[in-house]
Order: sequence, then C-alpha cells, then structure tokens
Amino acid sequence: MTHAPQDRAAAHATTPVGARVETAMRRALALAAQGPSYGPNPRVGCVLLDPGGRTVAEGFHRGAGTPHAEAAALADARSRGIDPRGTTAVVTLEPCAHHGRTGPCADALIEAGVAAVHVAVADPNPVATGGADRLRAVGIEVTTGILADAGENLLRTWLHAVRTGRPYVTLKLATSLDGRVAAPDGTSRWITGSRARAHAHTVRAQVDAIAVGSGTALADDPTLTARTIDGSLFEHQPLRVVVGRRPVPDDARLRGPGGELIHLPEHDPEVVLQRLAEREVRHVLVEGGPTLATALLAADAVDELHAYVAPVLLGAGATAVGDLGVTTIGEAARFTTQDITRLGDDVLMVARRAEPAQSVQPAQSVQSVQSGRLSRHTKEEI
Amino acid sequence: MTHAPQDRAAAHATTPVGARVETAMRRALALAAQGPSYGPNPRVGCVLLDPGGRTVAEGFHRGAGTPHAEAAALADARSRGIDPRGTTAVVTLEPCAHHGRTGPCADALIEAGVAAVHVAVADPNPVATGGADRLRAVGIEVTTGILADAGENLLRTWLHAVRTGRPYVTLKLATSLDGRVAAPDGTSRWITGSRARAHAHTVRAQVDAIAVGSGTALADDPTLTARTIDGSLFEHQPLRVVVGRRPVPDDARLRGPGGELIHLPEHDPEVVLQRLAEREVRHVLVEGGPTLATALLAADAVDELHAYVAPVLLGAGATAVGDLGVTTIGEAARFTTQDITRLGDDVLMVARRAEPAQSVQPAQSVQSVQSGRLSRHTKEEI
Repeated sequence: MTHAPQDRAAAHATTPVGARVETAMRRALALAAQGPSYGPNPRVGCVLLDPGGRTVAEGFHRGAGTPHAEAAALADARSRGIDPRGTTAVVTLEPCAHHGRTGPCADALIEAGVAAVHVAVADPNPVATGGADRLRAVGIEVTTGILADAGENLLRTWLHAVRTGRPYVTLKLATSLDGRVAAPDGTSRWITGSRARAHAHTVRAQVDAIAVGSGTALADDPTLTARTIDGSLFEHQPLRVVVGRRPVPDDARLRGPGGELIHLPEHDPEVVLQRLAEREVRHVLVEGGPTLATALLAADAVDELHAYVAPVLLGAGATAVGDLGVTTIGEAARFTTQDITRLGDDVLMVARRAEPAQSVQPAQSVQSVQSGRLSRHTKEEI
Repeated sequence: MTHAPQDRAAAHATTPVGARVETAMRRALALAAQGPSYGPNPRVGCVLLDPGGRTVAEGFHRGAGTPHAEAAALADARSRGIDPRGTTAVVTLEPCAHHGRTGPCADALIEAGVAAVHVAVADPNPVATGGADRLRAVGIEVTTGILADAGENLLRTWLHAVRTGRPYVTLKLATSLDGRVAAPDGTSRWITGSRARAHAHTVRAQVDAIAVGSGTALADDPTLTARTIDGSLFEHQPLRVVVGRRPVPDDARLRGPGGELIHLPEHDPEVVLQRLAEREVRHVLVEGGPTLATALLAADAVDELHAYVAPVLLGAGATAVGDLGVTTIGEAARFTTQDITRLGDDVLMVARRAEPAQSVQPAQSVQSVQSGRLSRHTKEEI
C-alpha cells in the first residue's frame, strides 16, 4: 500500500489544525517542485509548523549530495534562531530511515524533538522505508496520505522507478495530423513549429536520459542536447542513449558537447530499461524513431505520451508508430489525457498510461457506457 | 475588393461617435450570430442609433423567407413607436440592392430616412451588391470596413460560397494519434469519446450538407443525422450527400428520418462542389471516408479541418488520408490553427486553409524564419 488510510487524512482536513496542515502540505509540495526533476533522488519539500500552526521554517531537497528536505528545514529553523522542539513537520515524502550520503531523516527529526509528522506519500523505496515506524516507535504522531494524489503526481516518475525497478518512459511524438513523422523523401523539418520544438527542449532539460534508436542516430545525426531558445545548452544535459546494433559514427554530433553518450546494442525493451535503471535513470525520454517507439509500445513500457501534433497533412511517409499487433479497436493502446496545450499552430497532448480497467475494457462496454442512446445503433455511426 | 478603406474606419474609432459605432457593430455581429448558420442567406445583424448615438432598435435575419436584418430593425423601431428618420444604421453586411423575396434593403433604409449607414463587410454577391452606391446616390453617408475582420469571420462560409461559386468545405477527421480511422479489422467505434462525438453532432446541425463517399455509405450504413446527446434529431437536418458510383441500398439508414438524401455519382471534386452549389449549399461538412477526403485535399478544396484526435495508438489500419502527391515536406498540406478545444480525453483542432504565402513556403525559408540559431544545423535535429 502506498499511503495511509484516507479517512484519517480526511478527518484532519475538517479541523482548523487539519486545514493548516493541508495548507502547509501545499507549500511543501511547491517547495519540492523547486528541486531538480532529474537525478536519482526524489523531489521533497518540508515545512515546520509551531504549536500554533504557524510556519517557522521550510526546506527542500536540491539534488543528490545536498541535504534532504527535513534536514534543510531544520537547518533553516536553526539559522533563524528557532528551536524546532515541539514543531510539526509537514513533509511530501515519508522521512527516510537509511544512511545514505546523509543520515536518516527520521533520526534527525527525532533528535530535533519534533512533536508530529504529516506525510503526503509513503516511501516505497525498500532501502529507505520504515521512517514512519521509527518515528512512531518513539511516540511521535505520524499521519500519511495528506494530499496524497498531488504528492503521487509530483513524484510519479521517481515512484514508478522505485516501485517497478525500471525508468518511467515518456515517448515523444511529433507528427502531422495524419500521424506521419516525415514526407516520403525523408524530409521532416519542420512538421511542428518553433514553439513546439522549444517546449520539447525544456522537457529534455527535466529528464535523466534521452533515447533514440541507432537507425535514427545514423539517419538524422541528432545532438540530443537540451537547448534554450537562443541555442545555448541548459545546465542539465541528460544522458544520451542510442539503442540498437548499428554503431554511432566517430564524427556523430552525439559525440559533441552535451550529456554523456552510451550505446546499448540491445533490441529487447526490458533489457534496455534494465540497463538504464542500473545507471540510476529514473525518467527516460524516448524520441524515436518509429522502430524504438513501436518496440516500447508493444511491450507496454510507455508510461506517458507527449504528442506534438501539427495542422499538417502528408498522406504518405513514415508513420510515428509501426505495427503494435493491434487487430481490433478494443486492443488499441489507449492513454488518459492529462493536459492539452496549444503551442503556436501545434497542440501538445500529454497522456498517461490508462488504468488497466480502461485499457482492457472491450469496445462494447466502452460504447454502452459512453454513448448513451447512441449505443442502440449496431453499426458504425458517422 | 471586399471592404472600404481602413483609414476611414480607423478614423471613426478614434472619435466618440466612432467608438459608439464600433460598439453598435459588435452588437450587430452578436445579433447576426443568432441567425441560422445554414441556409442560402448570410447571417446579418442591424442596430439603429439615434443622433445621440443611443441604440433605439435592432434586428437580425432569421433565415430565408424572413425579413432582412435592416427591415427587422426598422420594424423593431416602429413597434416601439420610434421614427427611424435621422437614425444611423449599423449593419454587418452591405444592404442589398436587389428584389428577392423581400425588397431591396437599401431602398427600405432610404424610405425610412436614415441619415448614415455603417457596414462591416461589402456585399460580394453580384445580384445583391450596389446597396452602398444606391444609398450614396441619395446623399446618405456610407462607411464600410467597420470591424471588417470580425465580419469576415462571421460570414466566412457564405462569403466563400458567393465569391468562389462553390461551397465552403469543412473536412472532419476523427483519428488516433497515429492518424488512423479504424483498426485493421475495420472496427472504429469508438476511437474518439462521447464528448467529441456530441460536438461533431452540433457541427452537423450548423451546416447545409454532410457528404460521405459511397464506399463509406455502404460499409458503415450511417444515418448522417444531427442528433442531440439524448439521441433525438436537431430541428435542422442537413442535406445528406453520397458521393461516388456505388448505389445507396434501399434499406440504408440514410433513407430513414433526417435530411434529404442525394446521390452524386461523380468522382471529380470540382463537379461535386458545383452540383452542391446548384443546390444552394454554402457549407458542406465532409465526414469521409479516406477516398473522398483525399480527393478533396488533393484538389486543394478543403477550407477548414476539424480534427478530433484521441490519445490512442493503433499502429495499423486505415489512415484518415491517402496519397496527396506530397513527396517532400515543403509540399505538405498545411493549415492554420484557429482553435484548440479539449473534449474529454480528446482534442479538437480547428484549422483553416493556410494563406498561400505560407502553404507554398519552401522548407528552407520556414526553417530560417522559425528556428533562429537552430537553423545553423543542416540536418534534422531531434
């Protein structure tokens, strides 16, 4: 189970103290979001409340090798001359119980004398979990599940990686309205416009790795760097990953300035993801080509789609996705839309893996649920 | 030329009277939009202002066989006991000069003694144009081009039909993210969700005709009716048009309740549109299949796209659009996005024919304009 009983969290929200805890958790989530979305560690924020419910200190994790959020908040309190004894810690992720580069956060909170701890998401990391138990063992009240959905959403790539042992996979598609990524002669610049391309670069700057197939690496000679609108490199450059048997030429631009380059001469998506997990990749952005995209989709390994769609029709040329083994509409790879953003003339659809209940739902039941009286029609109604 | 000098209209907007005229034109446009978007006549609204600039009467055209907007506004004035003499008429379309089922509006305004007439869009209809000249000939001040862009947008389907002699063509596509309209076994219900389908029905209720290819008529046995969410028919049912050589079976649902059915055993898009124009069709919604859509696109006869896109990938199956003769990216059929709307999990992209300057722009110049420093790269950058 990933978080504590909802009824306890819900009861909290109905009391003045509970409302203050929720407000503090919103702030803690906003603080967490200031941390880097890439890297092996989760984004965590922490707010300390005095017994009257007022915020006295806050902190967030700034990435591997820097203090955890709880330690940062305790340090913030001390730098303000505030004794954290008796405060309530509101933390987006269950305080850890393990010795990493820093000591266990649960112990730091115990030593600081905090009176209570409120948590959004329980830590599923087997080497770090147990913080809540450790706190409760010394009599500190611990509540989990406060704004759990928001916490899960913020940490979704990290949680996925920890829970499944493989990276969260975001598949980027940039297509015409008829699903093509290039004209018949192979030309493809540009199907989407400059705003869509600039957006895609900001996504690159948020992930651990970018992967392309070796055929695409050869054909397109990409740099796979994360660049600002003026063409300069973002500070964070993701790992560059080429998947497949074909070699990366010595003069490839992939060998130029940018993130570290690794070549995985593999075809099995599971093996590729395992190899990335071994490199502590929590989130990989897959940018094509169609062969790699199709292999990941067919293996049901795509967690999120970023589909940039341009108001363009080509009628022929390479398609974004090859044969997925789908023969009938009920077998379609179906995602759940999270967000729709207009970018110039293009649209970005962000969609996530549909819940199993939806993806395996046969067309018949989808129809009867969704179409109301239209469902009396037995054939396609257009 | 379609409207009068902008500088005159612009000068108007800078004076108190001009500002009042613009406000009245906005109201006249809103009134016009209350009229039916289907039918042979344009949507027109009219506001009468007294010499102090106050609105004293208003009217709009409710469809063929009913009074024109100017006559409706004059009748409104009289019903309020107001003498329209000396008022200023603010009309979205140049008053007509011809005898149709009603007399010329220009004459009605002259007889009523209006002092000035302000117009958004000049009437391009060869049988009706000349109203402004007729008014000026008797000394009435006429200004055209007031909020001309908004007027052109409101009347775009009608103006297109009158100017070109053929209907405005809206092509509806309902596809997966990879541009497919069906799975390999032909199943397609439902790729898009119930909100997208309900929206498509509201569009049907706004057009003069819906067209499908005869293959689609046979394969899908559609009704091509405009239905509300509860499945009942909208009051207005568009003409149902089947294009192509294959016959419509006697027991086809197309022969059931709904709009009149016509079968055009033609293949040439120009001939089809000519035949529709002869039926006074100003706006036809083309719903497929791919053969008809492709023929219209290849003939550059599509004025507007309504692309409903679902967060679904199929990987195989029929595509929305067949070969358009595009070989390289610079030849792509490119549209200009007007609107992006989320409909449940789906997105609707409404896009219109791009201006010639954009559609014929070679890839090279698009690249240099759009990508700034990225354009120094000579190959595809992904």
